[in-house]
Amino acid sequence: MRKNIRSRLFITASVLAFGAMSSVGAFEALPQQPPIPKDNPMSPAKVELGKQLFFDPRLSSNGTLSCNSCHDVSGSGTDNRAVSLGVGAKAGGRNAPTVWNAAFMTAQFWDGRAATLEAQAKGPILNAIEMTMPDEQAVIDRLSSIPGYKEQFAKVFGGPNSLTYDNLAKAIAAYERTLITPNSPFDRYIKGDKKALSAAALRGMKEVQAIGCTGCHNGVNFAGPALPMGEGFYQKFPTFTDNDYVKKYKLDEDVGRSMVTKNDADQHMFRVPTWRNVALTAPYFHNGSVKTLHEAVRVMAKTQLDKDLAGQQVDDIVEFLNSLTGEFPKQTLPRLPGTPNMSVINE
Amino acid sequence: MRKNIRSRLFITASVLAFGAMSSVGAFEALPQQPPIPKDNPMSPAKVELGKQLFFDPRLSSNGTLSCNSCHDVSGSGTDNRAVSLGVGAKAGGRNAPTVWNAAFMTAQFWDGRAATLEAQAKGPILNAIEMTMPDEQAVIDRLSSIPGYKEQFAKVFGGPNSLTYDNLAKAIAAYERTLITPNSPFDRYIKGDKKALSAAALRGMKEVQAIGCTGCHNGVNFAGPALPMGEGFYQKFPTFTDNDYVKKYKLDEDVGRSMVTKNDADQHMFRVPTWRNVALTAPYFHNGSVKTLHEAVRVMAKTQLDKDLAGQQVDDIVEFLNSLTGEFPKQTLPRLPGTPNMSVINE
Repeated sequence: MRKNIRSRLFITASVLAFGAMSSVGAFEALPQQPPIPKDNPMSPAKVELGKQLFFDPRLSSNGTLSCNSCHDVSGSGTDNRAVSLGVGAKAGGRNAPTVWNAAFMTAQFWDGRAATLEAQAKGPILNAIEMTMPDEQAVIDRLSSIPGYKEQFAKVFGGPNSLTYDNLAKAIAAYERTLITPNSPFDRYIKGDKKALSAAALRGMKEVQAIGCTGCHNGVNFAGPALPMGEGFYQKFPTFTDNDYVKKYKLDEDVGRSMVTKNDADQHMFRVPTWRNVALTAPYFHNGSVKTLHEAVRVMAKTQLDKDLAGQQVDDIVEFLNSLTGEFPKQTLPRLPGTPNMSVINE
Repeated sequence: MRKNIRSRLFITASVLAFGAMSSVGAFEALPQQPPIPKDNPMSPAKVELGKQLFFDPRLSSNGTLSCNSCHDVSGSGTDNRAVSLGVGAKAGGRNAPTVWNAAFMTAQFWDGRAATLEAQAKGPILNAIEMTMPDEQAVIDRLSSIPGYKEQFAKVFGGPNSLTYDNLAKAIAAYERTLITPNSPFDRYIKGDKKALSAAALRGMKEVQAIGCTGCHNGVNFAGPALPMGEGFYQKFPTFTDNDYVKKYKLDEDVGRSMVTKNDADQHMFRVPTWRNVALTAPYFHNGSVKTLHEAVRVMAKTQLDKDLAGQQVDDIVEFLNSLTGEFPKQTLPRLPGTPNMSVINE
């Protein structure tokens, strides 16, 4: 309860004072390293194990979907669909958020129902319309039947009883903390390369401050201020509902965070999504209803700030948002441990 | 017609004469390079383009499936399912063959309906229960809307009209020709490392010759002799039908190659599958009905050679087959070219 009041107060204050705020650092370059929780230190072996798990379709009941299926790290860290399809092609309720730079988010899922990457990783595997494993024990049983995983869990976490659901989540989260896209044109600009941004992007950069977008989209990930981990930064969406967009894109059908908190004050509250790599993560919004970034900019200006933007403003803002596409690190494809002479998928 | 007669004559002759044949080279190490067709020379840029296409789910109608979904190069080059699930979770009719070392096969698909990797690559994308793109033009239209692909096709194949379905298939095939797993324990043994195989594997190696398995499972890929490209090497499966396995595993329901040739003589003829990495590609046979390699060995001995194997024979043969698991080359994960500000998937 306190959390949301604090978030809303912050927004109000920051929108009023954004001019001053931006000049003292509304814009920040992306760090090379995200926050690392004390109870899940990084190690190369843990990251490698987590990468294997992230890519392994055996974490889904019928062996068809891995984390990477909907959060494709070959691309935008999403599936570029309105909503993802789970086992049996069942449609999920919300658009898949990008896994790139998720390590900088202060809460996970659109409704912030997971405070950490570790907590998030546990969700889709057991979700009844996503990877549909029946329960934690079924996941552990399956992984325990894969010798290469048993060995790696023992090595990484120590001890004979190291293959646990908690440790599975820790390994995946450790891998996800390596999925950082630094050195976007914006970051290079912020660090002093004044030629890194085009004239249009620079105009867009001023617009997003002048209009008020950066009241929420600030911080290293343009997803709100760096609150203590797990708190999350939320905003009501849509805020202004008396416009055609809300009906056209069904923006008010999902009550968002209140489904988690059971608090009416959280109705239609959503985690503020990142702007980083947003040019690559279409379609947009929690329901994936808006197909282009240009339209998403128009919708946001109207529903959140009650402003109608001119075409040039939209173009310039889109140009600025494109400057937030970072450098995606080269990765090796993991080798998934095999199960000689048998399959662990029973269909 | 001539082809199949030749294959069957060859089998008969080789089974009768396998003793002499094995001593003159029934066993061959896997070459580091597969055959390269003259009309599709390899280049690093072509292989990189092909890898991107192989991993790109935008080659499926709803953006959920890539070639890699069912031929997972993180693992066995299969999906370790009885049959694969296409768009909308529709079940295919046959078990997905491995893409690893497919470049050494003299025909593609279980029924050999594609003579080359290029011809094979064109199939699943348009198949009505696999990736379900409506037609070639729809694939080309979609790829043409992705700037990074337009550029790469022009660079790799030359000219403004280089983004064609033929060239798409050529790029994918070029990538697949890099998917070779050399240096298995067996290969090291053949090349002179007499300690590379266990005593059990050596016993199994003798068994597969003595029993007659290598009458068909010979050549560099243990999938038949190196006939001219496109000819294919087929065998009737099941050959002996008066046993419980045929009914239990429904082995005679699929008429195989005759569906392609419309020739009754090809009823139940199937391409002889590779033994390489067979320990990792469970479940087994064209319908994926047999869950373990031990059972697959028993079934093959009975249905193809009318022999009942002792437990020790089965164990030894499985041990030998495990010695055919090769070294999987490290690969970088491709970066899929984006479509800034929009998605090409319309759902």
